[in-house]
Amino acid sequence: MNTDVRNAIYNQAKEWVLEAGKNIRTKIDDPLVIDTKSNPNDLVTTMDKETEAYFVEKINQNYPEHFIIGEEGYGDKLTALDGTVWIIDPIDGTMNFVHQKRNFAISVGIYHDGIGEIGLIYDVMADILYHAKRTEGAYKNENKLAPLKQNVKFDEAIIGLNHFWLCDNRLVDEKVMQQFVRNIRGSRTYGSAALEFAYVAEGIVNGYLTMSLAPWDIAAGIVIVNEVGGVTTDIDGAKLNMLAKNSVLTCNPNLQQDIIMYLKKGRK
Amino acid sequence: MNTDVRNAIYNQAKEWVLEAGKNIRTKIDDPLVIDTKSNPNDLVTTMDKETEAYFVEKINQNYPEHFIIGEEGYGDKLTALDGTVWIIDPIDGTMNFVHQKRNFAISVGIYHDGIGEIGLIYDVMADILYHAKRTEGAYKNENKLAPLKQNVKFDEAIIGLNHFWLCDNRLVDEKVMQQFVRNIRGSRTYGSAALEFAYVAEGIVNGYLTMSLAPWDIAAGIVIVNEVGGVTTDIDGAKLNMLAKNSVLTCNPNLQQDIIMYLKKGRK
Repeated sequence: MNTDVRNAIYNQAKEWVLEAGKNIRTKIDDPLVIDTKSNPNDLVTTMDKETEAYFVEKINQNYPEHFIIGEEGYGDKLTALDGTVWIIDPIDGTMNFVHQKRNFAISVGIYHDGIGEIGLIYDVMADILYHAKRTEGAYKNENKLAPLKQNVKFDEAIIGLNHFWLCDNRLVDEKVMQQFVRNIRGSRTYGSAALEFAYVAEGIVNGYLTMSLAPWDIAAGIVIVNEVGGVTTDIDGAKLNMLAKNSVLTCNPNLQQDIIMYLKKGRK
Repeated sequence: MNTDVRNAIYNQAKEWVLEAGKNIRTKIDDPLVIDTKSNPNDLVTTMDKETEAYFVEKINQNYPEHFIIGEEGYGDKLTALDGTVWIIDPIDGTMNFVHQKRNFAISVGIYHDGIGEIGLIYDVMADILYHAKRTEGAYKNENKLAPLKQNVKFDEAIIGLNHFWLCDNRLVDEKVMQQFVRNIRGSRTYGSAALEFAYVAEGIVNGYLTMSLAPWDIAAGIVIVNEVGGVTTDIDGAKLNMLAKNSVLTCNPNLQQDIIMYLKKGRK
């Protein structure tokens, strides 16, 4: 993607993300209409839909040749990542949005011919924008994020993962995962995949492990984590398919092999 | 405790907490000397010790008749809670302090003849003070916290608990706890007991469940949670011993019986 074109898209995307966030903040105390999707705890609100519709309208008006993949289905049904594709989660961490009125994010990844060019993760209530362009570094608001630390050891690592990893699950023997959380230094659960990617990029957690995420949960995060030297694959170390759900491990590269080998002990 | 006396102590304690927090912020990027205590992941830094020493010196100077229980051992060895006792955790969430440089708190509870009169939890990096005086309501900075919601249902609750509950443990069959996290709406792990108490008081999590906490982890939180109508007991519903370690359940009163009955199914 041409640098001038990318800069223009980046500036536009950033403006829309900040504007959408401002709209959410304005309405944060309004009564919510809450539906459920795949299960009773998979929440969606009118605000998720309104925010996605806002992006889709703006993109269609300004970039009619671009494609869109969005969580709430206002985008396109794509079978390939050719051309420029916006991959959007209007509210990542909807449970936090509903129950906490904070700790959620707008996530926008922009890919060109399958390559992640731009990542924007906006912690709406904290007014913190994590952002990156490929090969130009990652930022938290105006501050450039430092490259991830060298020599982070497995037994001193803090890893983000939800509690379901320690229950009977289809991917890894739960006994192995129970040992895993005893062998690392600490485990955290924040409830927003996009923010956990941002925290990996900041180095405040050293990795984030998740069973099944859609492209919109991770598209922006991958670009941002890449720019500080982090790596993102599935839990076996394989490349992610950005048109499907994947298990995901994003982490400090020092830890990647240790974590994958650990999981392999219980891999189903 | 006389109201005027309590107000004077409260104002003084608040000033010291804010001052200690400011000192920590000033030095947050200084190199740390990190030791370990009960196990390699039980961290303590010079900043924990310096902060506790600051409180102990101030209290001894200004209130020589008061007693002190502090995490780092600069306080008194008490066998009763007679008189006025300051119960202090200089840095609650030391792992977060070391690894994240945020998401930790100063926790100060002030008890008189065993009754919690004052609670102060200071989220140092966010500059947010949760505070309460018994019977006068709880505050987040200058904003009064609303009473906890009525009619919170067990299957719509978000509960804070760490991952070790889902591993073999001495308190509750881990299989029961694995089912527990599937039956509630969501589980979170933040790494600071004091902040999780504050989040219960704010209503952004509906309960917090922990295996073994010392008095300094919970003394302030109990007072603050009380003031919004929350309840704090051990995991069997019994009164806490503020001179010993306890299992702890602090939660919305709607949920207390449901959670205790659930745990009873696997109680060892």
